[in-house]
Amino acid sequence: VALKFFRSPIQVSDKAGPDAFFDPVTRADKETESCIRRAIEDRWPTHGIIGEEHDNKPARSDYSWIIDPIDGTRAYISGNLGWGILLGLTEKQAPILGLMHQPYTREVFTGDNHRAWMTRDGQRQPLQVSGVRTLEDAILYTTTPDMFTDPILLRRYNQLGRQVKLQRFGGDCYAYCLLAMGFVDLVVESSLQSYDIVPLIPVIQGAGGVVTDIEGQCPMQGGTVIAAATPELHAAALVRMQSI
Amino acid sequence: VALKFFRSPIQVSDKAGPDAFFDPVTRADKETESCIRRAIEDRWPTHGIIGEEHDNKPARSDYSWIIDPIDGTRAYISGNLGWGILLGLTEKQAPILGLMHQPYTREVFTGDNHRAWMTRDGQRQPLQVSGVRTLEDAILYTTTPDMFTDPILLRRYNQLGRQVKLQRFGGDCYAYCLLAMGFVDLVVESSLQSYDIVPLIPVIQGAGGVVTDIEGQCPMQGGTVIAAATPELHAAALVRMQSI
Repeated sequence: VALKFFRSPIQVSDKAGPDAFFDPVTRADKETESCIRRAIEDRWPTHGIIGEEHDNKPARSDYSWIIDPIDGTRAYISGNLGWGILLGLTEKQAPILGLMHQPYTREVFTGDNHRAWMTRDGQRQPLQVSGVRTLEDAILYTTTPDMFTDPILLRRYNQLGRQVKLQRFGGDCYAYCLLAMGFVDLVVESSLQSYDIVPLIPVIQGAGGVVTDIEGQCPMQGGTVIAAATPELHAAALVRMQSI
Repeated sequence: VALKFFRSPIQVSDKAGPDAFFDPVTRADKETESCIRRAIEDRWPTHGIIGEEHDNKPARSDYSWIIDPIDGTRAYISGNLGWGILLGLTEKQAPILGLMHQPYTREVFTGDNHRAWMTRDGQRQPLQVSGVRTLEDAILYTTTPDMFTDPILLRRYNQLGRQVKLQRFGGDCYAYCLLAMGFVDLVVESSLQSYDIVPLIPVIQGAGGVVTDIEGQCPMQGGTVIAAATPELHAAALVRMQSI
């Protein structure tokens, strides 16, 4: 469903014309979420569902699903590949399973806090974070410094960016998957929603990584998020984002 | 060849270990360029060849090839997808044919200044830039603001970034292909080498776009590059990059 509207020709038509009201991202978002909701409701009618596009469905059991049908809509509208479909499962409010699906590259990244794996074209490979422990050796990703709307956090982020081996922008949810694969060592972002990060927690942790909010807690509410390959690297980044 | 070393497991192994001298990017760069050089030399022995990794071969005809075997090495080493193989052909120093190949997504973007097309999985589609004429409607890409090593250019770039509809980072050579596809409207970068941009000129122009250096000339030497969907948008961006 999400792929059907991706790089849709109408997207580049005259925005002021009669089709100006047609927003392929909104349609892709809504239809993808509806499709996932139906599949969950058919199979697990007592599970709760929290999505970006529709009203929350309260749980009548310990389980709730959290859906971001198109995470990275700015990548999506510009035809780029950092977007993905995020789906997470919580048990008594704790994330126990999560996945990111990039349908154009046909990659699915899945994790259950203990293990994580990527499947593509029927092949499955385990995911394992890198062993990088210091900022000096780390590759850092953030989608854009504009995420740091708090000027104090932006200043801390910029200082952090100058201490790493390589700072890269772009990425969106794909950056967390690159971290789980071991090619990126650190992702620091801000202004995240709950559904932007909760589905990725079991993937990151399953690959051996550490992910918290700026208080060092499990980032169930989103906000400022620090994801790292090792506890040492996480601690080094966290202290720099916490202190002035 | 380039794909063989992409996301290579050794890339994430202990960098201080006995394999520390093994650099998959350097090997991928060298071996990919050698492979392309052999194919050109077999077929067109009088053509010149300019590459990033080997000595230039002078032309004994009007034709020279320009090769960037792995453009976007920072995307490549971090496992991301903005990198590509760039190959251009010049006739009497003017670019007449160019392509970008992304082997992981299996996309090839080709242009001859008059037409441009993308091929994937045996399907071929024409490329056409958007009709966006104003900064207020434009999606702007640059790989990173760090490219603007001249502080005056960085200030102008930052001002430009505040005038567009959406500014995105990341992208590497893929951003120019998104421009040719019509999803991105403007790409402004700096510190480019000749081989970073010359192979992309016939693709951008073939899709109907405009690409120049900061003097408004064909960017044969790289440097600061402004690529836009329309002449109007190009002029608006160029004047802002030229004036203080």
